[in-house]
Amino acid sequence: MRIGSPGYTECLGSVRINDVQQVLELDSGRVKELPLRENIDVQKIEEEVIKDFEERMAIIIPIKDEKLELFEGVISGVPHECLIIVVSNSQRRRVDRFRTEKDALKRFCHFTHREALIIHQKDPVLARALVDAGYTDILGEDELIRDGKAEGMIAAMLVAMATKKDFVGFIDADNYFPGAVWEYARCYAIGFSTAKSPYSMVRVLWRYKPKISTGMFFNRWGRVSEITNKCMNSLISNRTGLETEIIKTGNAGEHAMSLKLAEILTYASGYAVEPQELISIFEGFSGVLPTAHRTAAKHGIEIFQTQTRNPHLHEEKGGRHLLVEMLLPGLASIYHSPLCEKKTKQLIIDELLQQDAVRPNEEPPKPCLIAPLRTINLKRFTSVMTEYMKSYSVLE
Amino acid sequence: MRIGSPGYTECLGSVRINDVQQVLELDSGRVKELPLRENIDVQKIEEEVIKDFEERMAIIIPIKDEKLELFEGVISGVPHECLIIVVSNSQRRRVDRFRTEKDALKRFCHFTHREALIIHQKDPVLARALVDAGYTDILGEDELIRDGKAEGMIAAMLVAMATKKDFVGFIDADNYFPGAVWEYARCYAIGFSTAKSPYSMVRVLWRYKPKISTGMFFNRWGRVSEITNKCMNSLISNRTGLETEIIKTGNAGEHAMSLKLAEILTYASGYAVEPQELISIFEGFSGVLPTAHRTAAKHGIEIFQTQTRNPHLHEEKGGRHLLVEMLLPGLASIYHSPLCEKKTKQLIIDELLQQDAVRPNEEPPKPCLIAPLRTINLKRFTSVMTEYMKSYSVLE
Repeated sequence: MRIGSPGYTECLGSVRINDVQQVLELDSGRVKELPLRENIDVQKIEEEVIKDFEERMAIIIPIKDEKLELFEGVISGVPHECLIIVVSNSQRRRVDRFRTEKDALKRFCHFTHREALIIHQKDPVLARALVDAGYTDILGEDELIRDGKAEGMIAAMLVAMATKKDFVGFIDADNYFPGAVWEYARCYAIGFSTAKSPYSMVRVLWRYKPKISTGMFFNRWGRVSEITNKCMNSLISNRTGLETEIIKTGNAGEHAMSLKLAEILTYASGYAVEPQELISIFEGFSGVLPTAHRTAAKHGIEIFQTQTRNPHLHEEKGGRHLLVEMLLPGLASIYHSPLCEKKTKQLIIDELLQQDAVRPNEEPPKPCLIAPLRTINLKRFTSVMTEYMKSYSVLE
Repeated sequence: MRIGSPGYTECLGSVRINDVQQVLELDSGRVKELPLRENIDVQKIEEEVIKDFEERMAIIIPIKDEKLELFEGVISGVPHECLIIVVSNSQRRRVDRFRTEKDALKRFCHFTHREALIIHQKDPVLARALVDAGYTDILGEDELIRDGKAEGMIAAMLVAMATKKDFVGFIDADNYFPGAVWEYARCYAIGFSTAKSPYSMVRVLWRYKPKISTGMFFNRWGRVSEITNKCMNSLISNRTGLETEIIKTGNAGEHAMSLKLAEILTYASGYAVEPQELISIFEGFSGVLPTAHRTAAKHGIEIFQTQTRNPHLHEEKGGRHLLVEMLLPGLASIYHSPLCEKKTKQLIIDELLQQDAVRPNEEPPKPCLIAPLRTINLKRFTSVMTEYMKSYSVLE
């Protein structure tokens, strides 16, 4: 794979934010015996290196009543070396969709000789293990894990920690193009392979193709991203005193983290989860507030933003109200950060008013925050989980 | 890559038509030291094998005023080991789009250290070389190569012959997903790697996703394919006396051939080109008519049909009339084959009447046939071309 080098890197305390890198060539072929001198702006990442990092990575696929056909496509695109972890919140009554998903995953793994884990978000064993390990922020009143993609993602990351992987990458289950899934996983691997710090994150930027008939969605999502990025950049600009447009992936659902980094971040529920990750990094490591983790601060936090070659085409859900539904939580997580100053707060209010997302003199609701993964008693959690891990494996 | 084995193979004289094979896993990872026993229905093709065949393959990309952005995406998806040959019939007046395409290709090859050729369909040197070499079926009255995708494909195959490649694969320039392009090239390579005969062809079958908003097009194209396949299967059924549905890729634009096979087929102009390839094979090697090529008959002709994991999403052009425009030539090529008996002829007429594509008592127009490539004086052709080949290279 060949990828452009980041044009520049912006620093915010010990956070290094790399500008967007473009994928240039999906498959760069064999290792040449005499390595050619690459263009100064281009990096060739050899297949073996990509595979080394894929081996250390779990791909987490959150699913909730998605079409099975799409799910089957998505798993077929995940590179073989990655461990697939599916976290499902699909219905189990009437039709047991979880069962169907598990069967599909099992069939796939059977034919392709690979391992995968699948957990249900409402699994009582998993919830009990969390209680035992003192990690209860994602539990509801019924003592099961709450609904919500963020809660599922966090549960899956905890499972990934128990499997001793080094990296986790997220890919949605409703992607129409297995080839795009494959590219995401490779972009994650490449980001980690070029990172200098063990505390790193890769966020994917899609190519929009607004001219095809599904363009409506691309545009709408594009608009949400645009506003979120603007507000996040305003926050950074007002902290550094230098105008910046460095953040281009504030809402990136397709993203990956080293578990070392994932363990020390504060999360948020719902659509705020992805923007909140960045906010947590800024809060913890920009040097404005007390440092969240000394070792991490020493290594620095590295953020990569990669623009894939494939556009993103996925199931369209909901109507216009979705814009507000997606926009509000992300902006709220910026608004309520202790880093957020007056100017950015005003910008956020203005944007939300313009989208009819808040009423005049109303503030966006506070995000529901979730403690970092490392606050779990991992020993206790894994000791409970080890016993049950087999039952989550499709090769049980 | 893992791919299903063909469920069965139908024989028609020395033609072996394999049933559809499904791609199961895009990227099957490393070679395992202890190779696992694959499921009986599954083949794992190792990366090294795929790359060996990609090295021997030219990917031909016909282009005609396509959006540059799409073209750039398509070339980024072609595996590095393949030689890219672009055959452009884009406008050169007012805006010199050919120049823009050449520049984009050059830029891509510069950054990725690869070679590519680009020719314009109206190139006078190329036309003159064809005249010199006695291959004039694709020339118009102005002694230049005629307009039309088939003519461009043939010109590009002749160039591929001059570059001494063993295989040619076709990929359209208007594909939205580089990841799908990558998969096509791999499917071609895999087909050739599993072929027992040096005379082989791989035809790609798309997954339709008719539920997304662009579904209209998928449906329409699906309908054209369905009818063409039905008529072609009727022809085979009536020859063998056994009902069959083996042909599922009668219209496959995405397809590849060994040049050995490509050299001995009769082609047709326009949308008839892809169905005509199959008809030429049936005419030449089904044992009903005199054998077209004795060595090929001895080896047998092998046809693979591969269903990709990625769906196909491309530029939508034209309206409903396109159905007729695409359907008529293909059915005409079946209708006018000496192999075509009364029953199939009637079926074709019925289908065409139903689509308002012919009037009552009207026959479909005869296809414009083009002599096999091997009728060219290759020595003379290459001797002219060698001199100019450099000017077609983007690394000139």
